[in-house]
Amino acid sequence: MASKEMYELGSQASVIRDLFAYGQAQAAVVGTENVFDFSIGNPTVPAPACVKNAIKDILDTRESAAVHGYTAAAGDVAVRQGLADYMNTTYHAQVRADNFYMTCGAAASLTVTLKALVESGDDEVILIAPFFPEYTVFIHNAGAREVILPPDITHFQISLEAMGKAITPHTRAVIVNSPNNPAGTVYSAETYTKLAALLTKKSKEMGHPIYLIADEPYREIIYDGLPVLYVPEFYTDTIICYSYSKSLSLPGERIGYVLVPDCAADAQMVYAAVCGAARAMGFVCAPHLFQEVVLQCLGQTSDIGVYDANRKLLYDGLKAMGYECVYPSGAFYLFVKSPEPDANAFSEKAKKLNLLIVPADSFGCPGYVRVSYCVEPAMIKRSFGAFQALMKQYQ
Amino acid sequence: MASKEMYELGSQASVIRDLFAYGQAQAAVVGTENVFDFSIGNPTVPAPACVKNAIKDILDTRESAAVHGYTAAAGDVAVRQGLADYMNTTYHAQVRADNFYMTCGAAASLTVTLKALVESGDDEVILIAPFFPEYTVFIHNAGAREVILPPDITHFQISLEAMGKAITPHTRAVIVNSPNNPAGTVYSAETYTKLAALLTKKSKEMGHPIYLIADEPYREIIYDGLPVLYVPEFYTDTIICYSYSKSLSLPGERIGYVLVPDCAADAQMVYAAVCGAARAMGFVCAPHLFQEVVLQCLGQTSDIGVYDANRKLLYDGLKAMGYECVYPSGAFYLFVKSPEPDANAFSEKAKKLNLLIVPADSFGCPGYVRVSYCVEPAMIKRSFGAFQALMKQYQ
Repeated sequence: MASKEMYELGSQASVIRDLFAYGQAQAAVVGTENVFDFSIGNPTVPAPACVKNAIKDILDTRESAAVHGYTAAAGDVAVRQGLADYMNTTYHAQVRADNFYMTCGAAASLTVTLKALVESGDDEVILIAPFFPEYTVFIHNAGAREVILPPDITHFQISLEAMGKAITPHTRAVIVNSPNNPAGTVYSAETYTKLAALLTKKSKEMGHPIYLIADEPYREIIYDGLPVLYVPEFYTDTIICYSYSKSLSLPGERIGYVLVPDCAADAQMVYAAVCGAARAMGFVCAPHLFQEVVLQCLGQTSDIGVYDANRKLLYDGLKAMGYECVYPSGAFYLFVKSPEPDANAFSEKAKKLNLLIVPADSFGCPGYVRVSYCVEPAMIKRSFGAFQALMKQYQ
Repeated sequence: MASKEMYELGSQASVIRDLFAYGQAQAAVVGTENVFDFSIGNPTVPAPACVKNAIKDILDTRESAAVHGYTAAAGDVAVRQGLADYMNTTYHAQVRADNFYMTCGAAASLTVTLKALVESGDDEVILIAPFFPEYTVFIHNAGAREVILPPDITHFQISLEAMGKAITPHTRAVIVNSPNNPAGTVYSAETYTKLAALLTKKSKEMGHPIYLIADEPYREIIYDGLPVLYVPEFYTDTIICYSYSKSLSLPGERIGYVLVPDCAADAQMVYAAVCGAARAMGFVCAPHLFQEVVLQCLGQTSDIGVYDANRKLLYDGLKAMGYECVYPSGAFYLFVKSPEPDANAFSEKAKKLNLLIVPADSFGCPGYVRVSYCVEPAMIKRSFGAFQALMKQYQ
């Protein structure tokens, strides 16, 4: 006596959650120090000091209703103005407070944007493998269908040939996620330039704009001095979905935004639909205290140097052992090619060594595993024996 | 190039929001002290001291990841255990941690519950006028249709005769909201007993359970020593939607829960569907810091005595002027009969006196207005001249 679809979604086993639970149970058996859990993407670097300072400052200086009361549905206007100023200074974005809709985190940003854009059950949203598996759940919630582009396992950029073929009159949007979960790759300016040319041409052909949804929770977690690109500068019909979960290590606080820049086609209509979609799903407003916190922490991040050090340690370590790894340029995931075609079998062998890594089949990229390195550096070092023993089985 | 339905939802004018905005604008013209804004239900009584103390204590004693990290999707298990213990002690509820799903507030509790229960587009959800207008938006989001019971303007309880007629084979759920927004009334034990008998009989007749969704954000805001009733004690197939927005004056923080007690039909299946629905809509987890805060504030509330004093002041004052008022037993709304049949015309006349009250047409109860008394007591006193002048127009 419940929705069968929702029941199934709610009871599905999750590879990542199951691995994490297995790790907790194993820790009790073999000791925490002998379990090497690279399964989840929960930031381990603490939130920067500005977060705690901001909360205390806000609590000490403002009245309760001004801290904990409802904000406008789109978010406090001073917060949104602060965001606009920051984006204009940092990326020359030319945006206004009214282009921002504050959300309960990245997932909400996406569900709201998709529900705002999707018009009919025939609508299609293009995903580029490897992709975050919840995208398909969110697309179905909006009433559309996903069209999955096979991974470009040479460069982990975008196969424009495949994209060109995948676009149909039903294509409503394309989701890009750079820095990428799970591949740890970053799209180049060249990739965006070519993608923009293709989408512009195809939008004209199809007679309607194809929106680019840029899902950017890892925007600032980028290495080797690579530039952070402002996607609407390449393709005007872009909607940005952002979250502070990773940049400020606040995943549990559910705070982010949707940015519909004026340059996007029918921007005002899309923005109003974003407001309507959030209303329909019962979001009301983003958590108020953390709206104020992100305003006070603009431009700050958790210590990304820790992730960078982990990245080098893990990448160099695994390469030296003979693992084939995708060079990680952003986020905190190392994408490793399974030494046997079946990454599930490989992950099972790893599990027997208490090494918890995620087969990328559910990310649309069989034959690879995701190794999350938002972990204690000491654990990476301790894990090398197990990684070595694992590789030995293939030599 | 956006969903027409979402665009319309997002661009609809809101009577309440428009009145509030008008009030802000008028204040600049005639002075804040000469505008009497009874339009919105934003709690004015500050959050109790335990909220601020809990936040500071948590920030000072725990590590960042333990405060701001993801919790389980259903919420931190210690928080849910605390809630279960509290409900068991206070209401002999016999519930477990796993009966609770923490949400981003009352609206999320409802959208998630409705989406979990609705199986097909033929499904119907019964609303009892007067009702919170967003219910219809949430029902549509779940893909069902609302069936509206006319108000019982004699007692503002539930017309069981009307309910009996409204139930069809498609009836999936009934939403009750006591203490009631906008009527300020509270359902009696007698009402629940009779309702339970009817729903039990009709569930049998229809061959499937008809769920009762008890939307209880005002649960503890109740006067004259009236008891707080635990609805599943009357009707087992009850799902409780709760929020701390009003009881702890935290509407902007978006924290509440869905409680699916074991006594409800197919409880485990419904609970799993609640998990699935929250996942589909992108809720991920309820805000973490405030999950911990409500655990530390169990059983505490804002100073309800302030609302009680406002209630008496306003009720006695308006009665003395000749207004016909529904006796307010809970929440912080006084429901007043319009002296002319058209409550919109009445509200317009009030607006000319800078008296901002909400016609109840959108609440499904034409001929009445809602007067929110979660306001400064001094404003109530200052408003009496305007209320008097307004009544004079009808004498």
